[in-house]
Amino acid sequence: MSLKITNAKRIEGLDSNVWIEFTKLAADPSVVNLGQGLPDISPPIYVKEELSKIAAIDSLNQYTRGFGHPSLVKALSCLYEKFYQNPINPNKEILVTIGAYGSLFNAIQGLIDEGDEVIIIVPFYDCYEPMVRMAGATPVFIPLRSKPVDGKKWSSSDWTLDPQELASKFNSKTKAIILNTPHNPIGKVYTKEELQVIADLCIKYDTLCISDEVYEWLVYTGNKHLKIATFPGMWERTITIGSAGKTFSVTGWKLGWSIGPNHLIKHLQTVQQNTIYTCATPLQEALAQAFWIDIKRMDDPECYFNSLPKELEVKRDRMIHLFESLGLKPIVPDGGYFIIADVSLLDADLSDMKDSNEPYDYKFVKWMTKNKKLSAIPVSAFCNAETKLQFEKFVRFCFIKKDSTLDAAEEIIKAWTTQKC
Amino acid sequence: MSLKITNAKRIEGLDSNVWIEFTKLAADPSVVNLGQGLPDISPPIYVKEELSKIAAIDSLNQYTRGFGHPSLVKALSCLYEKFYQNPINPNKEILVTIGAYGSLFNAIQGLIDEGDEVIIIVPFYDCYEPMVRMAGATPVFIPLRSKPVDGKKWSSSDWTLDPQELASKFNSKTKAIILNTPHNPIGKVYTKEELQVIADLCIKYDTLCISDEVYEWLVYTGNKHLKIATFPGMWERTITIGSAGKTFSVTGWKLGWSIGPNHLIKHLQTVQQNTIYTCATPLQEALAQAFWIDIKRMDDPECYFNSLPKELEVKRDRMIHLFESLGLKPIVPDGGYFIIADVSLLDADLSDMKDSNEPYDYKFVKWMTKNKKLSAIPVSAFCNAETKLQFEKFVRFCFIKKDSTLDAAEEIIKAWTTQKC
Repeated sequence: MSLKITNAKRIEGLDSNVWIEFTKLAADPSVVNLGQGLPDISPPIYVKEELSKIAAIDSLNQYTRGFGHPSLVKALSCLYEKFYQNPINPNKEILVTIGAYGSLFNAIQGLIDEGDEVIIIVPFYDCYEPMVRMAGATPVFIPLRSKPVDGKKWSSSDWTLDPQELASKFNSKTKAIILNTPHNPIGKVYTKEELQVIADLCIKYDTLCISDEVYEWLVYTGNKHLKIATFPGMWERTITIGSAGKTFSVTGWKLGWSIGPNHLIKHLQTVQQNTIYTCATPLQEALAQAFWIDIKRMDDPECYFNSLPKELEVKRDRMIHLFESLGLKPIVPDGGYFIIADVSLLDADLSDMKDSNEPYDYKFVKWMTKNKKLSAIPVSAFCNAETKLQFEKFVRFCFIKKDSTLDAAEEIIKAWTTQKC
Repeated sequence: MSLKITNAKRIEGLDSNVWIEFTKLAADPSVVNLGQGLPDISPPIYVKEELSKIAAIDSLNQYTRGFGHPSLVKALSCLYEKFYQNPINPNKEILVTIGAYGSLFNAIQGLIDEGDEVIIIVPFYDCYEPMVRMAGATPVFIPLRSKPVDGKKWSSSDWTLDPQELASKFNSKTKAIILNTPHNPIGKVYTKEELQVIADLCIKYDTLCISDEVYEWLVYTGNKHLKIATFPGMWERTITIGSAGKTFSVTGWKLGWSIGPNHLIKHLQTVQQNTIYTCATPLQEALAQAFWIDIKRMDDPECYFNSLPKELEVKRDRMIHLFESLGLKPIVPDGGYFIIADVSLLDADLSDMKDSNEPYDYKFVKWMTKNKKLSAIPVSAFCNAETKLQFEKFVRFCFIKKDSTLDAAEEIIKAWTTQKC
């Protein structure tokens, strides 16, 4: 092959991807899939019905406004105004994107330059690192660390940032920090005090905050999701990212949004108009209609923003109970729809796993998928090269699944541990 | 505002966009819109029905394969194998993207480096230039030039590249040429001989060809769409781009695809997995089903690939007749769904147009939209800064419109020119 026809340098080394690798493995229909974060529960019936109806309307199958379909940005501004101190301008302070993923990309490409530093909290949703590298910037990592729990239940709130260590990561080159609350994969819901530490540093160092809040509705009893953009001095420097897939259990719609001040959002808009131009119209209109249904009943337990976390909390508790009954130490998540657990106590003969350079959890999940017909995601996929060893005993299980799927998983895990005894 | 919180350099100066500006103008419901290239005719009923049905299926509302939904890449490979000499691997040689726009972006970001040169033929679909600039590369422009037509009908085939001039644009830095056939906005369908000249230069200079073929089905009597990727030595260096929006008159679905050899497509895949990860599942499944319906009847006049160009040819001829009857000289398009015409003969008092630095056609279209309630797109929007003057007398009219819309446009134009006399 000719030398000239090669990849651009900006994507050098960015070609591996955990989802592609593990989704392929879990595609076998005999595998019980607790891997990728996608619901197998039904999305709300009205969400699906809105799309069915809208598909029949000619004009809603054609291009719409590039920065967000008018009815959708209006619904989003109406919804989020309830959580911010100020009104949100639907045209200037909101951008509808191809999933939260598209919002992350637009924010990073629009605001991060070559040579900038971006702080990433480990473990992290895996795309943060390659997106920062694709922008030619340097990711600076800081791990969440757990305090000792001595026999108590292990909670996602036991995992914290050390404020001194965090401060040491900021400097004049720091352009942004990427925050994720509720956190994937740990399930941590950052407290007011924790967010204040981050906010103070962002203000001190004149740094952006890219706040990935896709699991914002999925917080469990005793916890409350807070938006760092509502902290004093933070609106002007924060991009807050949400997701239709996570909000309405329709990950396949690939719609998300960025909210922030116009002096930031306008640069994300510039990226959008030079990458994809606009998002799908019928999905945006259906999403807007679904939002209006739930915006009108936000205090009602039937509102999906309230009913889904209630439904999921039962599933969370069930899985925690299962793991604990087997002597594993799961980390109880305060939010999100994942549980991570130390799997090194589970009996697994990995001696014939070929690629011995892989972290333990990669080998473990591959072995489990093949031999136990149960899939999950290795937590070291959410780590940079240097911290993989710290997290390689952990595996992430997704619990936004039908009871029958969780039954099947339970059966597999029980049979496995019984064999061991 | 702080100095640090500004846009990334890569998007500097890339914030203006003709669609955003002129779509806003045409949003007034009293305006007859022949501007943006979107159909107001109904998409095929089965296309809409497939989406309605699929919306009800839970699993088709969740994430699918990142590089293309399995049933869609299978349909695409089956369809395009009919036009290529070789089978097309659905997983390795096809990438489904957010419209053809997303394919262009993925190709340019995945294959074009800072410092590279990319040849762009003027006029050009407007995003080519900012996309090349966002990659840090230098666009090198060459205009299509018209031969004199002396009273004959003026045809898009009268617009050609000068082979010597084209050769002079290639050098060791040339990484790619962007080809667009059928051409937007001129409607030119490149002939075998013309494509051979381009292919020879691509091979001689070891250059990529990014071939935007979104209007591939829309060619009119006496013309044939040819794929440069099927020319000897070209498959290995060509990315061919198609569009669901243009194929099935559903521009709002924002689905497109790139087809090419795996050694190129894999780099576009890497960009996709670090930008948007995957496209919407329900739309991809509906598109696959629609394709199967038409793949099975490709020799049938009812097949949409055959019926749509027949329907449009009548509309083209009607608009050409209208423009000619008024003494304008429209350029008869051999493909696509636009007509460009020299509007300098139309009476328009632009003396009160504020922004006198704008090209004539910008001022003309703004004036026409406001005063005549008819919108179109200025052709200089499809030109680089240096060639805008060459094309500023031309305006682009979209004719994939209901007869009632074309009737309204005709009425406006006739009343206008009658006033003049």
